[in-house]
Amino acid sequence: MRTAIRRAAWALNRLFPALLMLPALGAGAGAQSGPDLSAAMDDLVAANRILYRQGVVDGFGHISIRHPERKDRFLMSASLAPGRVAKADIMEFDLDGRPIDQRDRSIYSERFIHSEIYKARADVNAVLHSHSPTVIPFSVSQVPLRPILNSAGFLAPTVPVFEMRRVAGSGSLLVTDGMRGKALAETLADRPVALMRGHGNVVVGPTVQRVVARAIYTEVNARLLLQAITLGGPLIYIDAEEGKAGEGNRDRNEAGHATDRIWQLWVEEAMGTPETKR
Amino acid sequence: MRTAIRRAAWALNRLFPALLMLPALGAGAGAQSGPDLSAAMDDLVAANRILYRQGVVDGFGHISIRHPERKDRFLMSASLAPGRVAKADIMEFDLDGRPIDQRDRSIYSERFIHSEIYKARADVNAVLHSHSPTVIPFSVSQVPLRPILNSAGFLAPTVPVFEMRRVAGSGSLLVTDGMRGKALAETLADRPVALMRGHGNVVVGPTVQRVVARAIYTEVNARLLLQAITLGGPLIYIDAEEGKAGEGNRDRNEAGHATDRIWQLWVEEAMGTPETKR
Amino acid sequence: MRTAIRRAAWALNRLFPALLMLPALGAGAGAQSGPDLSAAMDDLVAANRILYRQGVVDGFGHISIRHPERKDRFLMSASLAPGRVAKADIMEFDLDGRPIDQRDRSIYSERFIHSEIYKARADVNAVLHSHSPTVIPFSVSQVPLRPILNSAGFLAPTVPVFEMRRVAGSGSLLVTDGMRGKALAETLADRPVALMRGHGNVVVGPTVQRVVARAIYTEVNARLLLQAITLGGPLIYIDAEEGKAGEGNRDRNEAGHATDRIWQLWVEEAMGTPETKR
Amino acid sequence: MRTAIRRAAWALNRLFPALLMLPALGAGAGAQSGPDLSAAMDDLVAANRILYRQGVVDGFGHISIRHPERKDRFLMSASLAPGRVAKADIMEFDLDGRPIDQRDRSIYSERFIHSEIYKARADVNAVLHSHSPTVIPFSVSQVPLRPILNSAGFLAPTVPVFEMRRVAGSGSLLVTDGMRGKALAETLADRPVALMRGHGNVVVGPTVQRVVARAIYTEVNARLLLQAITLGGPLIYIDAEEGKAGEGNRDRNEAGHATDRIWQLWVEEAMGTPETKR
Repeated sequence: MRTAIRRAAWALNRLFPALLMLPALGAGAGAQSGPDLSAAMDDLVAANRILYRQGVVDGFGHISIRHPERKDRFLMSASLAPGRVAKADIMEFDLDGRPIDQRDRSIYSERFIHSEIYKARADVNAVLHSHSPTVIPFSVSQVPLRPILNSAGFLAPTVPVFEMRRVAGSGSLLVTDGMRGKALAETLADRPVALMRGHGNVVVGPTVQRVVARAIYTEVNARLLLQAITLGGPLIYIDAEEGKAGEGNRDRNEAGHATDRIWQLWVEEAMGTPETKR
Repeated sequence: MRTAIRRAAWALNRLFPALLMLPALGAGAGAQSGPDLSAAMDDLVAANRILYRQGVVDGFGHISIRHPERKDRFLMSASLAPGRVAKADIMEFDLDGRPIDQRDRSIYSERFIHSEIYKARADVNAVLHSHSPTVIPFSVSQVPLRPILNSAGFLAPTVPVFEMRRVAGSGSLLVTDGMRGKALAETLADRPVALMRGHGNVVVGPTVQRVVARAIYTEVNARLLLQAITLGGPLIYIDAEEGKAGEGNRDRNEAGHATDRIWQLWVEEAMGTPETKR
Repeated sequence: MRTAIRRAAWALNRLFPALLMLPALGAGAGAQSGPDLSAAMDDLVAANRILYRQGVVDGFGHISIRHPERKDRFLMSASLAPGRVAKADIMEFDLDGRPIDQRDRSIYSERFIHSEIYKARADVNAVLHSHSPTVIPFSVSQVPLRPILNSAGFLAPTVPVFEMRRVAGSGSLLVTDGMRGKALAETLADRPVALMRGHGNVVVGPTVQRVVARAIYTEVNARLLLQAITLGGPLIYIDAEEGKAGEGNRDRNEAGHATDRIWQLWVEEAMGTPETKR
Repeated sequence: MRTAIRRAAWALNRLFPALLMLPALGAGAGAQSGPDLSAAMDDLVAANRILYRQGVVDGFGHISIRHPERKDRFLMSASLAPGRVAKADIMEFDLDGRPIDQRDRSIYSERFIHSEIYKARADVNAVLHSHSPTVIPFSVSQVPLRPILNSAGFLAPTVPVFEMRRVAGSGSLLVTDGMRGKALAETLADRPVALMRGHGNVVVGPTVQRVVARAIYTEVNARLLLQAITLGGPLIYIDAEEGKAGEGNRDRNEAGHATDRIWQLWVEEAMGTPETKR
């Protein structure tokens, strides 16, 4: 019974978040409005918390979504550790990385990662930059990050590595302007993931749920591949056909399957259910 | 005193779960009934939660038990992350993987792993499919997973690896029909564990408690073997006699010994005691 | 202020545990009595909980202390997972591993590890058998477990490995009788730690606090040595002089230093303070 | 709303800690006084708790700050596990490691690490000694600890290793007098980090926040470098220019950026917010 109530409340919360959460009265940026937007912001907050809880981000890293009503805008938190982000922290940016209504808020200096990818990739509705720990060793070595795990089949056939020295010489590794962001977007090309040498990765996708799942399984796959390489000898990688078949399952986006199943778990853990919150 | 009460309540709960838990009024599938069934379902729920807590499953993976009163049926959750499964989610399936009373519930697409193993193995009363992380590297390499730890002696002498490409070519790695499930059951043969290349494993046994313990120590042994291989040089494996002796101890199934001792701990941690639940 | 009260209560609890905990009225074995015994039993319960919390034991493993008033007896829990042991579970055994007052309680089948070591080692007042995970790889390889960490200097110069096959051929790895226990004690000789091939280790010492600390730092050192070996090339080990100097510091047993400092932390975490318990 | 209140309370606490915390009435050492001092002591307590929570210290290790009003004094806890340190435990020491007002308190025997570094390094306002686990393997091997991660760029170009045998022969590895402390300070020279063979490291910096962040990312970088070395082949390290650029960002010390962003997260987690504390 408790479980049934919990589930019902959870479902209600997912369908009508405005009923159970405080309306974002004047909380966000100027142009924000509507029920879709509010639900999208809830998902974005959940994504921030989930990525922290799952160890993909620590106090650094940022995730954004394209504005559900304006394709030339994106939504992202003010400059906070992802584990501390709340709905009132979500801000709106244009595709040059300019905040629409900054007020006194501090903003991420690497927001150009997001703006330039949204410009270059009409298929992309969510972008993550992280320091996902186990991708770092692959980013500094000549051993490519390749998928050995079905859940990470989207990494097939290869993952490119962005090298800042080729773009701007030895110096800051941060993507702090449009030129650097554009170069990163070019390295990413039409892929879901690119590594950034000595720094982390970017992960993109059609929805924020898919980006979160891709980021988590990229990290898991990196750990498992490192272990497989430690064992020694030839390895069998997920091949392009297998990768495509897995993505096909996830693209169908059925209730209770693939990303939907695990997203429900992650949200419950990172956000608490309405019951546990009270 | 608190501890004694806690233990007594726990024991009572184990003996008469119906007293302390809500009866599954109309909650499960049509043909379910009787006190054995209710206790079995409690164990199955606990198994789901334990496997999640111990890191054998994440949001994916599923565990089933053969119906205690009908050998041609098995019980398994609707399509949920194992860490979220409750008694009301348990459904009944026939040995072709058809739900007896599906209603509007989403079901696991890989249920054929379970149905085909129950068909092929009269000795098996519980089946797990997991993405147990550290078995993945062994599944994609040519280094066999062998036991070095007494608690994993059931892995002796060897663990087979299922390769979907041999069955159905390059494509989806999911076991989504009876043909694929049958091929997996054939690879498993009379063993307790088989790896699935790039995907995970299946673990089977005479009781759900044994399957949970086998799954956990398979993961532990994989981690330790990886470390031993890292050290380099020849290793001493648990041999067939040692494996048999260990299984003999566990088959005796004495109170306070072997699987019984650790199952009590796992249940307390994953489910809470009656005291902590209130 | 809260902290000061917490500390005072904690100290009080340490000095007069009988004031704050339920008296073990008829709870333990027949011959038990006196305030020293009660305090010793509290420490033994804490040791069980600490070892579980620190990952040295899982549901298996057992720790004992020599009876503070009778050198020919030792105290150990009935057959329970260490993380579930409470004061009422502590039983008394003679040096042949016979329970003094068993009643209906299940007892550890490997109690002969303890009885035979107490017989052979007058300097030893506490004995642990564990499946400490990272010692397993060393127990099955030809790479010796040696100290590289100051806190594990007691492992210098070498750690022996017990091989059951030499004693009883291939079969059960469990130390289930006096003959096997005696052989293990002979392998241990005058050392603080011996590994048991494919099984775990034994750790002994003058006090239960020292045994707990030795067990934890044996595990930590095993992890770090494995990493150092992974780096490659020659390593600098803690040498015999350094090991002796470290043990000298710990033998002085000063308040707020060495084992005392970390034991306070471990007890608070594993048992809760009186404040958090209420 | 809850979040906004929490943030406001948190900010208030940071600005006026004396309002929300118990005044340290006679709690600290004789010469202590003033609001700067009280805030500095709060930060020092937080640093102790954070380092424990992040796994840089276990029950051992100690962090100090230079007295904000007297450059010839430093502040450090009495001899306690860092995870248990509270404001009332903070003591004052002179630059020869003598406590100003010891009373009956036990003090760290390695306080000379701190006193000698403060003497030698006018730029340093905080000093940590830890047994940071993953630096140990590097301290005993010939493989240098070098940065591969942007957040650890301060380690470029190299990290020195202190060898006690060169100073005092084989024996205790503890820095228990001024001679040993001075030798360690000489090995450190003008660097932010030095390893101590078989023992741990020292980490220094201009503020306690920077020292905490440096200690945490030194540990993270050690883990990732170990993994990168496991992959094999040549690696790309953070070079001197990249290291300098990263430190330049951190030196700017802007609200919501670099160390400030992650320090807020760490404090919330280690100390609780005023809300969660009540």
